[in-house]
Amino acid sequence: MELKFANRVSNVKASEIRELLKLTQQPEIISFAGGLPAPELFPKEKLKIIFDKVMEESGSVALQYTTTEGYLPLREIIAEQRMKPSGINCTAENIMITNGSQQGLEFSARLFVNEGDVIICESPSYLGAINAFKIYGPKFVEIPMDDNGMIVEELEKALKKYPETKMIYTIPDFQNPSGKTMNLERRKRIAELASQYKIPVIEDSPYGELRFEGEKLPCIQSFDTEGYVITLGTFSKTFCPGLRIGWVCANPEIVQKYVLVKQGADLQSGTINQMVAAKFMQEYNLDDHIDKIIDVYKKRRDLMLDSIKKYFPEGIKVTYPEGGLFTWVELREDIDARKVNMEALKEKVAVVPGGSFFPNGGKENYFRLNYSNMSEDKIVEGIKRLGNVLKKYY
Amino acid sequence: MELKFANRVSNVKASEIRELLKLTQQPEIISFAGGLPAPELFPKEKLKIIFDKVMEESGSVALQYTTTEGYLPLREIIAEQRMKPSGINCTAENIMITNGSQQGLEFSARLFVNEGDVIICESPSYLGAINAFKIYGPKFVEIPMDDNGMIVEELEKALKKYPETKMIYTIPDFQNPSGKTMNLERRKRIAELASQYKIPVIEDSPYGELRFEGEKLPCIQSFDTEGYVITLGTFSKTFCPGLRIGWVCANPEIVQKYVLVKQGADLQSGTINQMVAAKFMQEYNLDDHIDKIIDVYKKRRDLMLDSIKKYFPEGIKVTYPEGGLFTWVELREDIDARKVNMEALKEKVAVVPGGSFFPNGGKENYFRLNYSNMSEDKIVEGIKRLGNVLKKYY
Repeated sequence: MELKFANRVSNVKASEIRELLKLTQQPEIISFAGGLPAPELFPKEKLKIIFDKVMEESGSVALQYTTTEGYLPLREIIAEQRMKPSGINCTAENIMITNGSQQGLEFSARLFVNEGDVIICESPSYLGAINAFKIYGPKFVEIPMDDNGMIVEELEKALKKYPETKMIYTIPDFQNPSGKTMNLERRKRIAELASQYKIPVIEDSPYGELRFEGEKLPCIQSFDTEGYVITLGTFSKTFCPGLRIGWVCANPEIVQKYVLVKQGADLQSGTINQMVAAKFMQEYNLDDHIDKIIDVYKKRRDLMLDSIKKYFPEGIKVTYPEGGLFTWVELREDIDARKVNMEALKEKVAVVPGGSFFPNGGKENYFRLNYSNMSEDKIVEGIKRLGNVLKKYY
Repeated sequence: MELKFANRVSNVKASEIRELLKLTQQPEIISFAGGLPAPELFPKEKLKIIFDKVMEESGSVALQYTTTEGYLPLREIIAEQRMKPSGINCTAENIMITNGSQQGLEFSARLFVNEGDVIICESPSYLGAINAFKIYGPKFVEIPMDDNGMIVEELEKALKKYPETKMIYTIPDFQNPSGKTMNLERRKRIAELASQYKIPVIEDSPYGELRFEGEKLPCIQSFDTEGYVITLGTFSKTFCPGLRIGWVCANPEIVQKYVLVKQGADLQSGTINQMVAAKFMQEYNLDDHIDKIIDVYKKRRDLMLDSIKKYFPEGIKVTYPEGGLFTWVELREDIDARKVNMEALKEKVAVVPGGSFFPNGGKENYFRLNYSNMSEDKIVEGIKRLGNVLKKYY
């Protein structure tokens, strides 16, 4: 067999994380590699009741096709319960349901990016987004971050320098992978720049509701008066990923473009999944559930950072994330985190080497640590083993 | 707001069917427009039990992320129960789960088609596929059909004439929209031509298991010795569409390319949906369920064709489909089916005008009728009203 694939296929390689996840499914591995939520926190009992009710009350509807935009009551609930508290004044017509926010990412590049166009993103940025965008053959321009997120002065310079920019991609809260959060002034400024340069901002917000401390910051879209900011949300981290429910929140005109793309892509997201999510949020308070997640993750973050302090050699920089799932480790420039990971795997510990989070490559002295998915004793033990590996370098 | 979209966006327009479906959701409309299965046949009670069991026995797994390829037991069951009886000797490694077969269609064009490449398809062809392909800017070459499906001599001529062909798309069983079925010899010949010209065949098979009479024909892939034929399957018509479970069945090397694309597109299909489908097929016999669907649809087909004979004016050609969901009506060349549909809508009956099923346009004297979704009395009444509309033209 000799098949010719389209040129775009050569742009894409397997996601390092998804491949690593296969390795780390062995139960003896202590994995800080994935971005998996803690399964013991899933509201299993409640969801079991809800599945039952939806099947009982409206099984025929739940098993049938529905509209591409998504199940209307769910879109209303998302607008009301999830987006309004983030400062976005919207209704169901601003919302289209996606299969997790990954689908929203891919659709965004499909809608806005021709081959050779520039996507501006944080440096580092989420590798799942980078991979989704790459199939459309963009150039990436990486904007450095400091402790307050993407440096907007550098963003403005890039917008001037690259008029072929078609999209700005940012994760303002507890960024993946860096764990950093963009401050209020920069959020306002990015909304202004989007209007000024007439360029869409894809605001990826999977972790914003998982804030452990400090004040919740409004979404970038809340400062957008013209409709250039598109926010992607998801229940994967605040509820459960197995239902595959995310959403696009944008100006209704833009939402209609996403609907066109989704029609061709997969017609619609699962009907029963959408009805179950809606019913859950009608009968229970998702915020109470999120509070429980926050309690557990905060403890795990604290324990991980404490253990790092205790077991890592000196001279290693680590982010202090105010929420979310990840911290980000910076090694001395001459140390290759891929090698560190290979050695850690021999000790049955896994991390994600940071190279893939830089779309233009060239930086290998970082790795990402996830603290949401491992129990407290495994966090301590894993960091201890990782410290021993690192001590050989320091 | 003035946003610049990517060039590919201008290739796509809203699906006429999905837009029509919104209209036809009014309960007083007799709709022959959609391709919806009969909801009264969904195995609701059994599925309610299965959802319950899956949540009870493995809720944490069902709500968590899973692999991009899909839930392994489901892939095994699909290979064993659905593909082997169609003559395809395969295992789980030949199967990747998709969100309905629509996602498989879109992924296929993404994998194989550059802008300006040729896709060869039947004339007419499924408009959801045409729309999914269009975003990649192909040229379509339409191959005429007779009562035995795509005319393979014409296919071969096209393959010689268009060396830039990158994909052959066909629906061999009870084709959408024509209702026609490709005979055995042609299936063999298409597999040979694929190898000879080294061009993938996308064999779309959503209806193959819904045969009312006559002998089941093996899939085109069953005659493929080299791996050029990719078969798309789905549970949307034989089980229920609301779970959004379809699959790609192909050579494992090709499946891995689809996996790469799915990683970027949406990571994976819903975990619980896949586990529920697998469990259902472990505990119940899907073939028994399909037999029930066949009984009902066969009656509805017979009734629709009888009513057409009774109420339509003479001189209108109608396909006799041996299975599936649709029949296809050919009007006199000077009659525009869009006008007929507008007049029918005034009488509260909806059909799909056939123009959109011809990717290069130009043929407006056809419409598609669906008989799976309306009750018997509505079929008779709807065809009667449609006949009255048509009588004005004859």
